[in-house]
Amino acid sequence: MAVVFRHFLKSPLPSLSFSSSSLCLLSSFSSPSPRPQIFASSLPASSPMDNTPRKFMDFPFVTAPHRNLMIDLVSTVENRLQSQLKPCTLPPDVQYYYNQSGTSQGSLHIRSGHSSSQVDFILGSWLHCELPTGGALNITSLSAYVNASTDAPHFLIELIQSSPTSLILILDLTPRKDLVLYPEYLQTFYENTRLDSLRQTLEKLPEVRPYYSSALYIRCITSPTSIMIRVNTDGAEPGRMEEIVKHHVDPVAKEALGIWLDQCACGQRNVDEAEKAYLEKRDGLIKSKTIEIDIGSSFPRLFGPDIANRIIGVMREAYEG
Amino acid sequence: MAVVFRHFLKSPLPSLSFSSSSLCLLSSFSSPSPRPQIFASSLPASSPMDNTPRKFMDFPFVTAPHRNLMIDLVSTVENRLQSQLKPCTLPPDVQYYYNQSGTSQGSLHIRSGHSSSQVDFILGSWLHCELPTGGALNITSLSAYVNASTDAPHFLIELIQSSPTSLILILDLTPRKDLVLYPEYLQTFYENTRLDSLRQTLEKLPEVRPYYSSALYIRCITSPTSIMIRVNTDGAEPGRMEEIVKHHVDPVAKEALGIWLDQCACGQRNVDEAEKAYLEKRDGLIKSKTIEIDIGSSFPRLFGPDIANRIIGVMREAYEG
Repeated sequence: MAVVFRHFLKSPLPSLSFSSSSLCLLSSFSSPSPRPQIFASSLPASSPMDNTPRKFMDFPFVTAPHRNLMIDLVSTVENRLQSQLKPCTLPPDVQYYYNQSGTSQGSLHIRSGHSSSQVDFILGSWLHCELPTGGALNITSLSAYVNASTDAPHFLIELIQSSPTSLILILDLTPRKDLVLYPEYLQTFYENTRLDSLRQTLEKLPEVRPYYSSALYIRCITSPTSIMIRVNTDGAEPGRMEEIVKHHVDPVAKEALGIWLDQCACGQRNVDEAEKAYLEKRDGLIKSKTIEIDIGSSFPRLFGPDIANRIIGVMREAYEG
Repeated sequence: MAVVFRHFLKSPLPSLSFSSSSLCLLSSFSSPSPRPQIFASSLPASSPMDNTPRKFMDFPFVTAPHRNLMIDLVSTVENRLQSQLKPCTLPPDVQYYYNQSGTSQGSLHIRSGHSSSQVDFILGSWLHCELPTGGALNITSLSAYVNASTDAPHFLIELIQSSPTSLILILDLTPRKDLVLYPEYLQTFYENTRLDSLRQTLEKLPEVRPYYSSALYIRCITSPTSIMIRVNTDGAEPGRMEEIVKHHVDPVAKEALGIWLDQCACGQRNVDEAEKAYLEKRDGLIKSKTIEIDIGSSFPRLFGPDIANRIIGVMREAYEG
């Protein structure tokens, strides 16, 4: 729910191509029917399939290593920052939402930081969309934002699986400042932390190729050590994708999160009033552009205007504090 | 002479690896002898091999398609901007320089813009270094800088060939502003110009892989459409590298230069005093960091302190106006 929701239903007939020319997955998929017939649902939250409401931490529909990774990441953040976070107070129809035909469903989880905390909020989500080709698109993400009392980077991870053999991973500590103008910031958070070695670890896998978001703005907000990759296991032995997630993506993601928790969420930085204003302006721009690029156009087509407005409204509220 | 001179002689025994962990080529090579015995030469400029002074536009030692591309690019810039450029007034021992053993030689070409021009200066160079492994490293580059009367991007191309089957290409219109804070700038120079389609064209070649500079600062100064690739033709038919340079790199580089000339060097932009100060500060930082990363540590070891100081001094002078 961070950088990959765009143009979800743009093409009337979908093609499952993760070419570098497409921003994000959502630009490559259509709704199950050539002319979407999606109606907003305001029924009580329940699973379209079995009437059981799904929870955020269920991370349904994804493989066990993928689910375990997400559960571990969310648990690690929540345990470490426990005393700094308010409970999630989102209404049930935001914590779990779906369209009437049951082809698209999702979950949103937001916990704001207490006013004394450097953490602004954490935002987790999963999204499941059935594809007309018979498969499904599954996106899981976790973002953790700090506030303007620190200039440390935010945390972001997003896994996008469109088939058993295709996975996109976006993992980054997103910078809060123009790294060209602040080389000492680059050194502190990106050179000294040796974040690039994590990127290199994954790059060495033969199944890994770089992933270029077709939204140039998204490329701009990431750091020079950002991990934006496509994993393709076509032709490999069954279970290879699970193996890659478990033995390669999982440890890398956890190490990156550990660095963020130690150096960013819990590190002390001096920020004066002018810097604070700069951080607020820059963060604000990124957040509004991200919502616009990410889900602004895709969610209404996926879930209908009512549900889309509800979800986007909640996100805007979190983003704008 | 722009973004790839770093740590040239760091390792006593060289290894020709273009791994993503090494910034730039120069980090991967050593001098011909395990303990460099390089002496500064202050003799009149003459070729170490045949006593004929080499000229900038000779682009010696590289393949015909590579040389033709560089000649065409320099000619195109100089013809188009002719009336705006002063002649090159560099002393002969900067226009052509070499170490006493003749294992390293290079050429520098700088033409400043007239005060009425938006062009600050153009800087071309080639460098040839014999490698202890028997091959040679050849770097050719062309940068074109605009001044603070416009906020349009600079132009940069660099080709680094370390063997007949290995080429690194860096091609970019380098942004002058933080693209996160100036999305309309991103749109004008990077989205509307469709620069990313050029990157995609080269990315499709099976011999092409992304190239990551090990200097994170270098990654920060490039644009989201920058072309930073490694071409490897190991195992391909003889002549494949020349074919790639002639039929793929050449047209892409010329199209990028055409966009720069039309939209940047010759486009009109309104820049107020505050913006001008911002551009000068940001440009200044990039230039000083680039010299430091690029040639500051490698040139003294390659050419000895006297020649290195002379070349670096001339570059600093051009950069600092």
